[in-house]
Amino acid sequence: MIQLPYIVDVHLRWSDTDPYGNVNNVMFLHLIEDARVMGLHAWLGASKSLLNEGIILAHQEVEYLMPLAFRIPPVRVEMWVSRIGSSSFDLAYSMSDPDEAGDNLYAIAETSMVLYKVDDGSVRPLRDGERAILEKHLGEPVDFRRRNIDD
Amino acid sequence: MIQLPYIVDVHLRWSDTDPYGNVNNVMFLHLIEDARVMGLHAWLGASKSLLNEGIILAHQEVEYLMPLAFRIPPVRVEMWVSRIGSSSFDLAYSMSDPDEAGDNLYAIAETSMVLYKVDDGSVRPLRDGERAILEKHLGEPVDFRRRNIDD
Amino acid sequence: MIQLPYIVDVHLRWSDTDPYGNVNNVMFLHLIEDARVMGLHAWLGASKSLLNEGIILAHQEVEYLMPLAFRIPPVRVEMWVSRIGSSSFDLAYSMSDPDEAGDNLYAIAETSMVLYKVDDGSVRPLRDGERAILEKHLGEPVDFRRRNIDD
Amino acid sequence: MIQLPYIVDVHLRWSDTDPYGNVNNVMFLHLIEDARVMGLHAWLGASKSLLNEGIILAHQEVEYLMPLAFRIPPVRVEMWVSRIGSSSFDLAYSMSDPDEAGDNLYAIAETSMVLYKVDDGSVRPLRDGERAILEKHLGEPVDFRRRNIDD
Repeated sequence: MIQLPYIVDVHLRWSDTDPYGNVNNVMFLHLIEDARVMGLHAWLGASKSLLNEGIILAHQEVEYLMPLAFRIPPVRVEMWVSRIGSSSFDLAYSMSDPDEAGDNLYAIAETSMVLYKVDDGSVRPLRDGERAILEKHLGEPVDFRRRNIDD
Repeated sequence: MIQLPYIVDVHLRWSDTDPYGNVNNVMFLHLIEDARVMGLHAWLGASKSLLNEGIILAHQEVEYLMPLAFRIPPVRVEMWVSRIGSSSFDLAYSMSDPDEAGDNLYAIAETSMVLYKVDDGSVRPLRDGERAILEKHLGEPVDFRRRNIDD
Repeated sequence: MIQLPYIVDVHLRWSDTDPYGNVNNVMFLHLIEDARVMGLHAWLGASKSLLNEGIILAHQEVEYLMPLAFRIPPVRVEMWVSRIGSSSFDLAYSMSDPDEAGDNLYAIAETSMVLYKVDDGSVRPLRDGERAILEKHLGEPVDFRRRNIDD
Repeated sequence: MIQLPYIVDVHLRWSDTDPYGNVNNVMFLHLIEDARVMGLHAWLGASKSLLNEGIILAHQEVEYLMPLAFRIPPVRVEMWVSRIGSSSFDLAYSMSDPDEAGDNLYAIAETSMVLYKVDDGSVRPLRDGERAILEKHLGEPVDFRRRNIDD
């Protein structure tokens, strides 16, 4: 079980902040969306069937661990595969400071991606080549605490 | 266990759409955020301690059931309380067509809200009055399918 | 010169606010974009050549007259045609309180729209039918003060 | 008349794109907003009176010259001062490819900034120190073509 995450430093925008001066909770999902678009492009390179054909986000979950105040230096998103199913897979994400900038972990997240055929909308199975690529980046599932926030 | 949801019809924006002509997955979270701001305001009315003091979104989860194409008529968000803890509670949401417009269910979601003290950032327990208000809107937890998307 | 504006009440979102609690300046442009999409659809109805063929926003200008704090009641956008050219036209906008809610004028704006052919990207002239529709909504140009903000 | 622009390469987001696959016109204004926040911070450094005290955006104008398709490499924003008044100043912007990436000019823009006192909301004059800083970055006004788009 080798984990080879995609690592990208994403930039905050002034407009990401809420009235409390922190990055709005919804904006975290724009940031992981960016990481996902870039990461899948980097992983799939030559064999882009996954991207050219249909892929939908069926589920997403995010847990906020620390407030993230607006700042000019970027935030690091690490992305890895956390589950490979027959016609779907999960991507996991962490949002933290880049190495040199501290070791805060701001959020963890997971999204479920489902493959489908554009022509008739039906779900399609992962091909062997796609599965092989995803397996190179397979790591642990995200350990959400939420079920035990209190009591 | 009485369920008295807050019901609000929210409006899509042209800028919510992604390159495929559907509402971007992240925008669903902006829509439930709107419903939450309005719904908590409606529920808490006179006794706004929950809102005037600190409340943070600690976790959110959303499952997408159908693509939602841009349209001028609004989308209905129903919101109810799905868990009441000692210093936190969960809100559940469904996004569907208003009665007259069909019976599509586009997404379900759940967010965990934690109460804290603004002055020192520590978590604080729910007060009895707050708990009484939340209990009037308590309903079922959201039944996410995701754990069994395929395999 | 008859002015028959399109009037639509648009809803703010919590996420429209900046760290000062006011609607972010950029969000005003999302709101007039919404009004434009709905208004052009209402005006053009059956003869949608303008929308089905290419139309681009070539220029926009907005002047902010008062801060607009987040609120649940909507904001009124009025839209009218302020110039009709050979292959372009301008749309003018005001953002104010709906009648019953006060008489604040928050912003005025103008956008230039250019018609082009999707197949080869070249600019195309307005057709007579399109011009006739636009003329029904023709009003005054927007009187921006900016050139004289001070000195 | 020396022009010393602030130059920053800003990153697009997948969510910036409209249904046509191009960066939405409104998003350009988010991008120049980012450049402005960073640029004013860089220029004003030690003497941040301009930022700590009140400053509002009173007017903005943008002209779109070429469609900007989503891409992973950044877009270059150059920002300079285009007018210095008694209690306001204008900032000008261009959005283009970074040197190595081509020489497309996507948009030009100008925003008017007004200084005011936070305590009573009244307009205040620029101080000599602020004026001196702005003068170092003073360049040409933006030459918008719009008045002559056609006819």
